[in-house]
Amino acid sequence: MRDPLPSAVIKPEVRGLTAYTLKHFDAEVKLDQNENPYELPTDLKREVVDRILRRPWGRYPEFVPAAVIKTLSKFTGWTEEGILVGNGSNELIQATLNVTLGPGRRLVVPQPTFTLYKLMATTLQSEVQPIFLDSESLTFDVDKLIEASRTANVVVICSPNNPTGNVLEREALIRLLKNTAGIVLLDEAYHEFSGQTALPLLTEHRNLVVLRTFSKAMAMAGLRFGYMMAHPEIAREVYKSKLPYNVNIFTLAAADIVIEKRAVLDRGIQALIRERNRVFAELQKRKAVRPFPSQANFILIRTPKPARETFDRLYAQGVLVRDVSAYPLLDRCLRISIGTPEENDRFLAALDRVLENK
Amino acid sequence: MRDPLPSAVIKPEVRGLTAYTLKHFDAEVKLDQNENPYELPTDLKREVVDRILRRPWGRYPEFVPAAVIKTLSKFTGWTEEGILVGNGSNELIQATLNVTLGPGRRLVVPQPTFTLYKLMATTLQSEVQPIFLDSESLTFDVDKLIEASRTANVVVICSPNNPTGNVLEREALIRLLKNTAGIVLLDEAYHEFSGQTALPLLTEHRNLVVLRTFSKAMAMAGLRFGYMMAHPEIAREVYKSKLPYNVNIFTLAAADIVIEKRAVLDRGIQALIRERNRVFAELQKRKAVRPFPSQANFILIRTPKPARETFDRLYAQGVLVRDVSAYPLLDRCLRISIGTPEENDRFLAALDRVLENK
Repeated sequence: MRDPLPSAVIKPEVRGLTAYTLKHFDAEVKLDQNENPYELPTDLKREVVDRILRRPWGRYPEFVPAAVIKTLSKFTGWTEEGILVGNGSNELIQATLNVTLGPGRRLVVPQPTFTLYKLMATTLQSEVQPIFLDSESLTFDVDKLIEASRTANVVVICSPNNPTGNVLEREALIRLLKNTAGIVLLDEAYHEFSGQTALPLLTEHRNLVVLRTFSKAMAMAGLRFGYMMAHPEIAREVYKSKLPYNVNIFTLAAADIVIEKRAVLDRGIQALIRERNRVFAELQKRKAVRPFPSQANFILIRTPKPARETFDRLYAQGVLVRDVSAYPLLDRCLRISIGTPEENDRFLAALDRVLENK
Repeated sequence: MRDPLPSAVIKPEVRGLTAYTLKHFDAEVKLDQNENPYELPTDLKREVVDRILRRPWGRYPEFVPAAVIKTLSKFTGWTEEGILVGNGSNELIQATLNVTLGPGRRLVVPQPTFTLYKLMATTLQSEVQPIFLDSESLTFDVDKLIEASRTANVVVICSPNNPTGNVLEREALIRLLKNTAGIVLLDEAYHEFSGQTALPLLTEHRNLVVLRTFSKAMAMAGLRFGYMMAHPEIAREVYKSKLPYNVNIFTLAAADIVIEKRAVLDRGIQALIRERNRVFAELQKRKAVRPFPSQANFILIRTPKPARETFDRLYAQGVLVRDVSAYPLLDRCLRISIGTPEENDRFLAALDRVLENK
């Protein structure tokens, strides 16, 4: 066959997928990606840069980045043998699904949630079973989740959930862990804003996999770093699908220094939590807006107007938020990241102008 | 089921795999990873660092790193729509296999070659058909490759091949492209040392995917950068399995600057090619050693002794090479990266002491 079309080689499940993308918009007030608006201190950045200038760039990173794993182990209390680091937690989600899913295997996933889980499972030709949030409160339907999970290979839970902000309570998580035949992949991307973590459950529940990222509270979205904590027996298997040398020397140095000096981030994280609560209270005062309670650094709102219209009018005022109305159950919804007090005030004022102008 | 063993959830094909690992050894003369011993100039590193200090670290990289892709397009002459960048070329190998392989699909792969292709295909529960190199010359068995590839989904060719150094000639590649129903994934990790590239074939052959890395000639192994060139229709599909924000802001800045200033690397690359030819000629003078012709920045040799013994005795003299004797056909073989003239002389002298001492 001469020059076959790619349709002969790309898996049909993949051809049917819409890629995960995000259109780029410049904006004065950027509240669309749940980033931490408080940059790392300049002297800490200098320390990272100095360390990197002392190291050869032409040599591979260590095969196992022992120093960072040791620092993470000290910080979390979890065993080094059960920790993997990744190029963002996304890589570790992919590696975990790669070793667990395929045709005839099944992922249970709440909807709406972070897009990537379903996309990756579909690429692996796995079955994907969505369990919708309660359509009124947008909280997890725990009984349905547990029922569906009994025979699942993987259940993935983002808690606090993106883009809704709700958490899976500890008791519900334990029930899930006890009742599923598979693993529970718990994405704790936003856990620092909730004061909750499943870390203490790892010892007793061998089928729990906890994922963390440095892209949100840790203010390192540009550097790409995440880590996984699981029973060493699971970590050993996921390791087989993680790329060798997956984290570059710059990010390893930054992660190591940031974990050691984590206290410099605390004030910013506390400010974001206070601001989330303040913005939520402010939004509750607006009759036309429904904000959903959030334990993350963003708030989901529903307005009376089409989301695209609200998005456009906010953007015209320099405020960039995320239109999430294409997700199931999220008609007329927008997700607003929490920024600095000034940025949040800009958003609230811009929203008021949109609402008055109806 | 309470706390099931991971054996209930990890795919059996994965449990059966041995992970790709590399034991770490410190050494004065490091010739084990095919790295470029000539570091990037200090002023270029300063430029990268200055650029990174002017950019926020808490914000995600661009969704599509347009600047780097534009620079790569200008450098290669290939269309921007057909270029993807990755966290090393390893990520793009994985993304390509993820969208093309699965149970009932088949990868054809020469053996011995780079370990990762087979590992990734096996994780995807795909069939893997090895086509052995000619056992005497360690060159590609082109007729067998073409025959096996007729109905394959993917044929992966590393050219120059790691760890043997041989190339797939242009005419053989064209025959392969014309006769396979699938895609040909051509890993050009070492192409700068061979003076050959399949880039000009991309326009005519829509089933060709070319991979490049910055870890070898480009002296950026520590930073993790690679790119893929393919027909835009294939690139669009592979894009679906590439991680979002897969390359961090530091590596993007470094890649952009290094491509623009590529000439600073030329002298080192030319020196490595000269040294490869000199070391090969030197090895040919040793009756007990068989060096295999190489178009890469390493040379495969066979000695009369067990590889482990030669490895250990070289290492005892401060020279670290790679024991590749566990690969098929490579009994008593070692792979030696080309270093600086001084490092290569250290290796030759150490080898002579091992050989005399028999």
